[in-house]
Formats: sequence, structure tokens, C-alpha cells
Amino acid sequence: MSERRGGEKTLEEVKKKVMERVEEVLPSDVVVTDVDFEGPEVVLYTNSPHSFVKDDSDLVTRLAKALRKRVKIRPNPAALSPAKEAKKVILKIIPEEAGVSERDLLFLDTGEVVIFSKKPGLVIGKRGKNVHRISRDTGWVPRIYRQPPIPSKTVNTTRRLILSDDSRRKFLRNVSARIFCGRTRSRGTESRWARVSALGGFQEVGRSSLFLHTEESRVLLDCGVNVAANGTDAYPHFNVPEFRMDDLDAIVITHAHLDHCGFLPYFYRHKVIESRVPVYCTPPTRDLMYLLLTDYIKVLEKRGQEPPYTEKDVKKVIKRTITIDYREPTDITPDMSITFYNAGHILGSASVHVFLQDKGHNFVYTGDINPTPSRLLEGADNRFKRVDSMVVEATYGDSRHGSRRKEENRFRKIVRDTLKKGGKVLIPSFAVGRAQEVMLVLEDMHRKDELEGPVYLDGMIYEATAIHTAYPEYLNRRLQHRILHEDDDPFTSEVFEPVEGSDHRQAIMEDDEPAVILSTSGMLEGGPILEYLRELSDDPKNTLIFVGYQAEGTLGRQIQEGAKEVPLPTPTGKTETLRIELRVETVSGFSGHGDKIELTKYVRSIRPSPPSKVFTNHGEPRACKYFSNHLRRTVRKVFSMAPENLECFRLT
Amino acid sequence: MSERRGGEKTLEEVKKKVMERVEEVLPSDVVVTDVDFEGPEVVLYTNSPHSFVKDDSDLVTRLAKALRKRVKIRPNPAALSPAKEAKKVILKIIPEEAGVSERDLLFLDTGEVVIFSKKPGLVIGKRGKNVHRISRDTGWVPRIYRQPPIPSKTVNTTRRLILSDDSRRKFLRNVSARIFCGRTRSRGTESRWARVSALGGFQEVGRSSLFLHTEESRVLLDCGVNVAANGTDAYPHFNVPEFRMDDLDAIVITHAHLDHCGFLPYFYRHKVIESRVPVYCTPPTRDLMYLLLTDYIKVLEKRGQEPPYTEKDVKKVIKRTITIDYREPTDITPDMSITFYNAGHILGSASVHVFLQDKGHNFVYTGDINPTPSRLLEGADNRFKRVDSMVVEATYGDSRHGSRRKEENRFRKIVRDTLKKGGKVLIPSFAVGRAQEVMLVLEDMHRKDELEGPVYLDGMIYEATAIHTAYPEYLNRRLQHRILHEDDDPFTSEVFEPVEGSDHRQAIMEDDEPAVILSTSGMLEGGPILEYLRELSDDPKNTLIFVGYQAEGTLGRQIQEGAKEVPLPTPTGKTETLRIELRVETVSGFSGHGDKIELTKYVRSIRPSPPSKVFTNHGEPRACKYFSNHLRRTVRKVFSMAPENLECFRLT
Ligand SMILES: [Zn+2]
Ligand SMILES: [Zn+2]
Ligand SMILES: [Zn+2]
Ligand SMILES: [Zn+2]
Ligand SMILES: [Zn+2]
Repeated sequence: MSERRGGEKTLEEVKKKVMERVEEVLPSDVVVTDVDFEGPEVVLYTNSPHSFVKDDSDLVTRLAKALRKRVKIRPNPAALSPAKEAKKVILKIIPEEAGVSERDLLFLDTGEVVIFSKKPGLVIGKRGKNVHRISRDTGWVPRIYRQPPIPSKTVNTTRRLILSDDSRRKFLRNVSARIFCGRTRSRGTESRWARVSALGGFQEVGRSSLFLHTEESRVLLDCGVNVAANGTDAYPHFNVPEFRMDDLDAIVITHAHLDHCGFLPYFYRHKVIESRVPVYCTPPTRDLMYLLLTDYIKVLEKRGQEPPYTEKDVKKVIKRTITIDYREPTDITPDMSITFYNAGHILGSASVHVFLQDKGHNFVYTGDINPTPSRLLEGADNRFKRVDSMVVEATYGDSRHGSRRKEENRFRKIVRDTLKKGGKVLIPSFAVGRAQEVMLVLEDMHRKDELEGPVYLDGMIYEATAIHTAYPEYLNRRLQHRILHEDDDPFTSEVFEPVEGSDHRQAIMEDDEPAVILSTSGMLEGGPILEYLRELSDDPKNTLIFVGYQAEGTLGRQIQEGAKEVPLPTPTGKTETLRIELRVETVSGFSGHGDKIELTKYVRSIRPSPPSKVFTNHGEPRACKYFSNHLRRTVRKVFSMAPENLECFRLT
Repeated sequence: MSERRGGEKTLEEVKKKVMERVEEVLPSDVVVTDVDFEGPEVVLYTNSPHSFVKDDSDLVTRLAKALRKRVKIRPNPAALSPAKEAKKVILKIIPEEAGVSERDLLFLDTGEVVIFSKKPGLVIGKRGKNVHRISRDTGWVPRIYRQPPIPSKTVNTTRRLILSDDSRRKFLRNVSARIFCGRTRSRGTESRWARVSALGGFQEVGRSSLFLHTEESRVLLDCGVNVAANGTDAYPHFNVPEFRMDDLDAIVITHAHLDHCGFLPYFYRHKVIESRVPVYCTPPTRDLMYLLLTDYIKVLEKRGQEPPYTEKDVKKVIKRTITIDYREPTDITPDMSITFYNAGHILGSASVHVFLQDKGHNFVYTGDINPTPSRLLEGADNRFKRVDSMVVEATYGDSRHGSRRKEENRFRKIVRDTLKKGGKVLIPSFAVGRAQEVMLVLEDMHRKDELEGPVYLDGMIYEATAIHTAYPEYLNRRLQHRILHEDDDPFTSEVFEPVEGSDHRQAIMEDDEPAVILSTSGMLEGGPILEYLRELSDDPKNTLIFVGYQAEGTLGRQIQEGAKEVPLPTPTGKTETLRIELRVETVSGFSGHGDKIELTKYVRSIRPSPPSKVFTNHGEPRACKYFSNHLRRTVRKVFSMAPENLECFRLT
């Protein structure tokens, strides 16, 4: 990385070229005073940012096309009105109903003004007219941050971490240099091949990690842990010789589940990574990641295991995150550009499309996908620019779910019946995804007067839900419409009540009222769910509903399989025997993964046409192999296989 | 490599341990005064080397077993008689018929005396009695070098290069340190996996190279070029990130063909390789490699292409060679040991058995193999200690040879008929392998009075044959017996006559006598064969016999396919049109590769039992895939596949 080779230029040299190109494209009345770079983006400084920020202006789009890069407009610092004056002007322009006060404005030294608001739509104005006026009248470029209706500590923390990070600018320049300054490894020639090393999550679930590399680029796709495994078996195989930290260009995270990002902070302990390797993910993934990673540290500590990193390292990850929305192509190295597509799995989950420039090859790594729309999310997007090769998850590659609609109806009936008898419904769930799906059903029942009692949310579920309310654009379109245009966010329904601590929890358990309790953990491996279970398991009026997969060896699995006496760990570290008298049910319709039929349909319906090479991962060996064979038999002209961990396969 | 990690020790520390173990094993009357290391060997210094060198003594074997290493005995320098005295004693002990004079003795500062002789058997004496006496009476340990009956410049050069290399001792110590001083990469833990990166020669013929690596070790198996390709397509994919020159532990070469060793000298341009990476191969492979590599440089220069290395680099390769005979297990890293087995393909060709200690896994890379015995060589050895996984060549994995015996008879008839008519037989051939097979048939015809004329050897064929005469132990057992015990080396037959230069060649062509001419190159791509062809092609009395594969696009292929007018490059760089009037025949029985039936039989008959995983290489895509599928169908419980170049597959 130190020597300059064939194609390498300095950022100054690149600047000059960009400036020339910009001047060719711009109309004569718009002046760009300077060019700079910020991570994968080209930043154009101008005296008249307002001439770029009209919603109907296609100038930014035209520039982006001409430069083949993402473009961001910034005001020439000389043209800024003083913050104090600007503040007044801005508050006058924004309508009062947007609820923006003085302390919701944050003036950055980039010439941007961050506006926090619960009603971003009102701040922006029709066709962007408010934003345009702010920019024209103050010189400052507004950036609007949605304040979620349910306040989220996580969202506040991640925003603060990034906004207050002094080293971020230098970091982003390092990233720009790698992307813009030309080839460093392939000596000015093209990459003749692209390969993927299967470092984890192949023929298994857990520790997903793909190392995608060309002659020029080294990129990690996902970086998970297997929370059920011990020692180094819990982590991907990072000791293969092709992977070296000081060679890494970027890390891309598909979604926030620990089996996809749980090892990430470990890398950020190392200066060589922290100083120049960005994490690309969607904005919701960044926030959910923070929540789940800090929680993982606590869980390990409780178990008496030493976490491989600290909360400080998690914060470093957040500071090094560059978020990208769905369908925004972004160059991440001199020969690779990525685009995220909705994966339908959890909030912000993405399939990554990688365009390998030199070979004109299009590779997609699905991450975890659900091709079927749910109450919470749209189904996985299958319309790409083009797909040549693909890694497809196969969690349920050899099995079938029940009908999602029928299963939901069965769920509703179980809940109704239990509450009617005066019982309590206990639903163990992961904090992210499944819980919100169930909440939407419960809210629907509540609205239709089918729910006789409140829904208590315990563990991390409430905070995870708060994060959902910060990103309505990432939700199912109908739900989005309800939230944004009907001002009716189901997550804020009065039926939901967060559990405020152990006294509150005790009171809920001792109360005789019928109620639904949603609590972590999802497999009864810890968390408040165990306290509820101890209290409620002896009453046949109550019902325990499993809504997610119960892994081999977990307490959840034992109870699901009908055990009547099970060992229960107590808070003091002992184990007592618990008699299971309550009703136990399993509802399979809330899965965040496609089953074999859904996945096959997804692959066959890929637009513009199915890939010619498919590799399966993220499933037991049986599932990965079955699904790979199934595809070969049912999709025309497809080559497919199920690689093992530690294999390295070719894309081009 | 610089830091010391978990298992690492200094050579001094290892010495001590070895000394302790040696003293446990040795009888009390034999004293070892010092221990040292030389490459993969443990060197024991003693005052009485003669107590180790009896042919019937198993002391060395016992020590090797106890130490699990190769063991070599050296005299304590203090116990040596002066070279001048020793010389007299030695010449008195060796019988006169051995033809050893004063200048055939070379006293090395290792305490060894090299004895050059055309009759090594006579030097050694019955049951080693002469060697024993020399050692007892002078203290010097004899090493006997066979002087081939046909003097070989190559053999002389390689021996001189190694004997006169001042840096070799230091180099061997570096190698020893890597092998004996413990783990450097896996930090004292075991290697949990072993992988092979297919760097070249997969689904193709040419540029064979396998990169075998575990968590501890990095070893290259073969390092070939594709002589028919251009630019970097001619070389293996050494720019994959898992392969780094400064990480390499050893290079193993199966045989001397350029598609297996042609890129090797390139590495030895680099200090980091030259100072510590040994080339392991059999003794004949070392010598043939020198011949073919220096010739390759000349061929490239003639073509106006820049060779990737110079003759100096080839010499560096030879200096870094550590030769191993068949069936001599040798540790090459802390977790790998290799054993060569006869591959039946050309002189000295080997299949490499690799024992991966940590996993107890046995891997075999066949290299190029001929499972069927020929006049020249034994068939490929299939009796291993154990085989779990295998890379098998598939040059003819999808086709059948004609019967070798029938084809030979047809060849004999064509030759007889042509000579009888007063014509000349022109046989284009590679210098190594095919040429000697044909020579053995011609010599047999000559002995049986079926050959009316001399056999002229042109190009490198005579020199390559000379190398064969230096290694009778590597030849077919019957041939060996004839040479060693009947004093009847067919290669020295008076029927063979080397062509001494262009005048001689001109004379041969103009002479009317019937004759056989064996000349390079094998596909009419250059070499003296073209001169013969220009002169002889217009006479239908003459015959051109192809005995080897003619690649697509070569002049040989055009003529073989029946072209009557072909373009012929002249020595002045122009092209003239050549009319083909002579008879053209193809004889397929001399192949150095097994066909699909022979290869399948070979795999099925592997002793003690066939491998459970087979990967195919060294063939067109069709051949590799066909053979892989064929094995799956016909060998019980075998997993088989045909990897592509740049894939990396797991062994364990
Ligand atoms: Zn997931
Ligand atoms: Zn997952
Ligand atoms: Zn003796
Ligand atoms: Zn060969
Ligand atoms: Zn070969």
C-alpha cells in the first residue's frame, strides 16, 4: 500500500480532473468553488447550494452520472451566514407543526445544519421548498434527522458518536484516497478474476463471513459469530493466508443479527483497520448493530465468558460506519461498487449487489432473505440491474413453512382463547424482527377489539421497536403509508407497555389480568422471559407460544418437544426444576427466512434474469446441499453448489 | 517469521534434545561427539563412522526411527587422517576395475570424500565392504557418484554447482531451522485444516502449480509454465492473496517437464526465496530440470521473447535443490512430511505423498503418471502408506490409447519398410522420455537385426539420454538389471550416433543411406527437425512418424492432419512453403500418461485402499470433468470433482 504503482494518483491530481469534468457539465450560472472527497462521495463546494437542492433539480444526478460517483453539495464557507442569524431564519421557514425549536438545530463545520424533527416531511416542505429556502437564504445545507416517536437511546447514541467524532474527517479522506486514487495492487492492469473465500456460515448457521477479493480489492461481506459455539469455533476462519487485516479495503454488513456482525468490533481494536477500513451498511443496520453488539458483550459477561472486544470497540465500529440506503450504487474500491437491496429479513436488512467493473460481472450476496412480504417488511427485492453469480442463504433450503396467513390466524385464536380464560400469553422472542412482526398482529387485534388486555414488552424489545420507528421508509409500504401519511404509527399504540424494571415485572406477574408478554430471549437461554416462565408455568390457563426456531440443546427446544419438568437457571446461579403446566404452542408463520419453495421462486424470478452460478450458504449441510441440488434441477442452465467453509470459489 | 512464538525453539535447544535421544538409542561402544542439522537431515558426528556404514547395520535406521527424522553420519573432524594419506589408502582399497584414479576423489570439508566412478558397485564392494574399510581406515565417509557411461555436461554441471556452493551450508541451516525449531505460524496449536489453491494446470495442460497450505505450512507443488501461452497467461496465478513469496516454506517438483518446473527460476531471483526455500525433487529431476530450463531460455530468446529469468537463476535453483529418492519420507515443515513415489512418466518423475501430521491426513499429488510399465520405466507406484485425498492428472481422462504392444509392432513395421525402400525415418520427439522409449525399441530392433541403418540423435536428445545413463536405479527393473548386472547399457549401443553439428547434419541428409533420425522439437515448433524436414519432405520414400501429442495450432498438427503444403520458418526468419510428399504416420503407443482406463484402474487399485476424495487436474476441461464423473460412478464411496484454476479446495 505504500509505494505508488501504475494507476495511482494523489487526491490533489484527482481533484483537478473532477473539477474539469464538473465544469463541463454545469450550466454557466452555477459555480463550483472547490472539490473535495468524503469517503465514497465527491463533495462540491458552491456559493449557491440552493441551486442544487431543489427536489426537482437533476443537477446532482447529472453530475453523479458524469463523474460516475456519488455527489454531495456543500456551501462555500465564505457564503455562509453566521449560525446565529441562520438559526432565526431557519426557525422562521420551518412550520411550527414540525415542532423544531432552537435546540433541534446543530450547525456543523461542514456547512451543514442538522435539523432534528419528529416530522421531517413538514421540515422539508412540499417538493422540498423549505429546504431550498433555507439553503438559499442562509447558505447552510440542511440535513434532516428524524426523531423517532418512541425515543431511542440507541439512535441518539449512534448519531452523537458520528457527529462528534473528530477523527472521522481524516478517516473519510483515507477511504476516499483508496477509492479515487487508482489501482494499488493490480499495477494498472485489470483484475482478471474475482474469488470468494468462505470464511464462515457455509454449510452452517452462524459466523457468516465471505471474503470477496479481486486482484485489486479485498472486501469482507459480513463478519458474524456463532453465539452457540465456543472458542475460535465461534468466529470465522480469519487465519487463512489470503485474508490479512492490513490488506482489507472495506467491510460490508448485510444486517444486524450477530451471526452477521458479531465479530466486527474485534477488527476495530486494530489501528490499521480503525484508520482506514469503513463499514458499509444501511442506517437501520448501524443502529440495530449497536444495540445487539453491546448486548452481546453483556450476555457473554453474564455467562462468565470473556468478550472478544469492549463497548469502546463497538463505538469505534459505529464511528467507522458509512451508511448507504437501498438502491444507491456506491464505489467502495477502484474496481468494485456495491448496491444494497431490501432483503425483507429484518429492519434495514440488505442483499448486496457487487459490480465487478473489470469483468463486468454482477455478484449478489443475499444475506438472510424473506422473499414474502410481511406485516413489517416488503418481500426481498429481486429486481437487480443484472445478476451473474449469487450466494443465496438456505436456512430452510430443505423444508417448508406453514402458510403464513393460516399460521397468523392460529396465533390470533390461541391468544384470544387464552385471554378469554383469564390467562396470560408468554411469547419468547428475539428483540429484533420477530418481536415487531408479532406486535403488528397484536396491534391489529387490539384495533379490532380482539385483544382483551395489554401487551407488555420486556428485555430489549421496546428499544428495538423504538429504532424501527426512526426508519419508517424501511418498513412495508402499507405500514409506511399509515405512519407517514395517516399519522398512525402502530408501534406507538397504547396497547404496548414497556416493562420498567423488576418491580413492574413482579407486579405484572402477580396481577390477575389477562395480558400478553413479549420478552427476550427467543430460545429461553436467558433474559426476563425466564422470570415470567418461573412464575407462570404452573398455571394451565397460561400459554407459551414459540414464534421462532428453537435450536438443539436449548431450554426452549426441550419445552417445545413436550418436556414436563425442565431445569431452570435461577438468578443466583443455581438450577431448580420447573414443572410445565401451561399450554405450549408453536406458530411457524413469522419466519424471517424463505422456505425452499419461496427461495426457489425467488431465484427463478430474479430480474432481469436468474444468475448462471449459485452458491448456497447459511444452513445446515443438508439444507445447503439439498437446496443447491434443487436449484440445479429446477432452474434452467444454472450451475449451483454448496461450498464448505474454507473453500475459495471463483465468480469470474 | 521473525518473532518467536509458542512452540519455537532455537537450533541449539533442539540439538540438545536430539543428543539426549541419540544417547538413549546408541550402544555404549558407539560414541556421537556432536549433532548438527543439514536441511531436513540430522547429522551425527562420530569418531567411528565405520560403525554406522556397514550395509547390514541398522543403526542409522534405528536412529532415524527414534528421532523421526532422516539421519546422516559424519566423521568427527579430529578423527580424520590427512587427505593426502587417505587418498593413497582409498585407491588401494578400491579395485582397479572400478577405474578410479586420483582425480576422481574429492575431499569435502564435511569429512566426506566423493568418489566418482563408472562402476559404483565395484567401489562399494560386496555388502559395502570397501566403503566400510575406507571409513574405518581413513575416518572419511565415502559418497559415491556414478559417472555415466555417456558423459553428461549436465550431470557434471549440477554436481559442480552443488559441491562448490559456499552458501549452501548456511542455506541448509535456514531450512533446518524451519523444520526443526517448531511452529511459527500456528502459535503452538495444531493445524485444523489443509487446503490446496489451484494456481495453474487445473482444467488445462501447462503451468501446473498447487499451493498446499495449512495453518502452519506453505508449500508449492510444481511451478510450471504453459509454453504455448503468452504473457502472464503462461504462468500460474501467483498473485492470489494467499500466496506470498516471503511466506513460502518449500517447493516440491514432481518432474522436469516445463509445465511442472518452468517458472521455478523466477522465484530464485528473489533473495527471500534464495536464502531459505528449498526445492525438493529426485536426483534425475534436478539434472533434467537444468537441461530443460536452460534450453527454455534459449528457445524464448530465439522467438524474440524475453525470458522471465536468466541461466544464472537456473543455477540458483540447482544450488537450492535438496534431492530425495523414491520412498524416503522427509519432513519439510513442522507439520508436513513428503515421500516421493515412482510416477512412471519420465526419468525421475514422482508422485508426492504428503503426510499432514496434525490431522493424520494423507494426500497424494500424482503429478503426471503412467500406470503401465514401459521399456524405459516401471509403471506408477500405487502402494502408499495410506491415501485419504488425491489430485490425479487427467490428460487422457476422457480417451483411450491404442494397445501399447500393437502400436509398437506397427512402429517397427513402418521403420523396417521405410529403411528397406532406402528411405529415411524422421521422428520428431521431445528430448526427455518419448525419445528414450523410442531408442529402446530401435536398439531392440538393431540387436535383432531388424534395423538396416544407424539412428541419428539430434537436438538435446543425446544429452538427455546421457542423463538417463547416470541413473540406472530409476529405470525399469529389467533394463536396470541389463545395465547393472549384464554390463549392457542399450543407450551406449553403437547404433546410436549423435549429430555433431550442422556439417554433420548436412552430410546425413545428403547421404543416400537408409537411417532413422530422432530429433527435437516434438511438435515441429523449432529445432533441427525442421532442417531435416525441409530436406526430406519431398521424397515419398521417407517417412515422418509422430510418436507424441501434436497440439492445436502447431506445424506438427497441420502435417498430422494431412496438409500437403505447409508454411516452414527458415533460419533467416522468413517463411517458405513446404510440399509434404513423404509418408506421414502417427503411433500412439509411447504415451507417458495413462488413458482413462489405466487411470481409473490406478485409482481403484491404490494400496492400502483408494482415497475418499479425488480432484482431477492436468487436462482439458472435458477430460478433467469426464474423468472426475467417471471416478464417481466407478469407484466406491469416492467424492470427486474437477476444480478450476484459482479455486481453493479443502483436504481436511
Ligand atoms: Zn439474520
Ligand atoms: Zn443469519
Ligand atoms: Zn568396523
Ligand atoms: Zn510431464
Ligand atoms: Zn505435465
